[in-house]
Amino acid sequence: MSNTFEEKTIASQSIYKGKIIDVRVDDVELPDGNKSKRELIDHPGAVGIIPVTDDHKIVMVEQYRKALEKSIIEIPAGKLEVGEQPEVTANRELEEETGYRAGSLDYVVSYYTSPGFANEKLYIYEARDLTKVDDALKGDDDEFVEIIEVTIDEALDLIKKEHIHDAKTIHAIYYLMQKEGRS
Amino acid sequence: MSNTFEEKTIASQSIYKGKIIDVRVDDVELPDGNKSKRELIDHPGAVGIIPVTDDHKIVMVEQYRKALEKSIIEIPAGKLEVGEQPEVTANRELEEETGYRAGSLDYVVSYYTSPGFANEKLYIYEARDLTKVDDALKGDDDEFVEIIEVTIDEALDLIKKEHIHDAKTIHAIYYLMQKEGRS
Repeated sequence: MSNTFEEKTIASQSIYKGKIIDVRVDDVELPDGNKSKRELIDHPGAVGIIPVTDDHKIVMVEQYRKALEKSIIEIPAGKLEVGEQPEVTANRELEEETGYRAGSLDYVVSYYTSPGFANEKLYIYEARDLTKVDDALKGDDDEFVEIIEVTIDEALDLIKKEHIHDAKTIHAIYYLMQKEGRS
Repeated sequence: MSNTFEEKTIASQSIYKGKIIDVRVDDVELPDGNKSKRELIDHPGAVGIIPVTDDHKIVMVEQYRKALEKSIIEIPAGKLEVGEQPEVTANRELEEETGYRAGSLDYVVSYYTSPGFANEKLYIYEARDLTKVDDALKGDDDEFVEIIEVTIDEALDLIKKEHIHDAKTIHAIYYLMQKEGRS
């Protein structure tokens, strides 16, 4: 696709370099020749995993999200380490967060989470043939999650109650419904 | 839902206050008593609109996204003004970006786009009974968009080509497929 309405960078100011995100403000030249500023977040990208058990339940994690100041229930996810292939991240995060190892891991789709200001790209995988492992990888020291397994109907109810309340998890549920021909 | 694993704020440092986003770093106390830092983006929230024409096409906009350094095709969207009801934002953004006014606007769902670091909440609406208006509201001076209308099959092809490549638009297409009982 052509880069219609491309905005040329005139200057770029680094605001913050963090552990997970970098922040910068770019001065841009617009297609009509005028100038504007763009506030931008650089993010390494992440994976989300849709783990489905043999009895058709979706494995999810409940965790506290400081940005929202509340706990929500999400599909397992985690950010890419430098140079890491998304499949590797997906297998690692699945095991760390849920204690499951996947017999099959299939790529579903990738998307930008919030293209208006961030370049975070999320790679979504579907994990099947799950087995619980005794010696599961340990997650980050500052991550606390609780595992729950839900049916699609239970997940729809959790969306209504806004306990499931993020884009990737809602998308995952629609994806499974569409795959199973449910409407 | 209980706030399992709540992280108490010990200190909060403002890094940047912008036009669209604010950036802060919070020092938190974890459930086990240890300390950590959270890099956080405050965002006013936004709406996304799924406009469906009488002949079952989805109205989308192609625009350059500086964060991605490329053009992508998205459903119309825009951020909430201070104190603005999401329905008002949805009608305004639909008209500004596409020139359409909606006879009916129905709430679909709301979700956080990237709960790991941002509190951006997106409210999704489905717009039907569209009429083109001659004296449409004008958008922001620094927004340049091109309107395209696509069938669901064309949209699925655009996802494959990664011309449609963001969470809200992919979700919108799955939502319509699920609504129409397609699999």
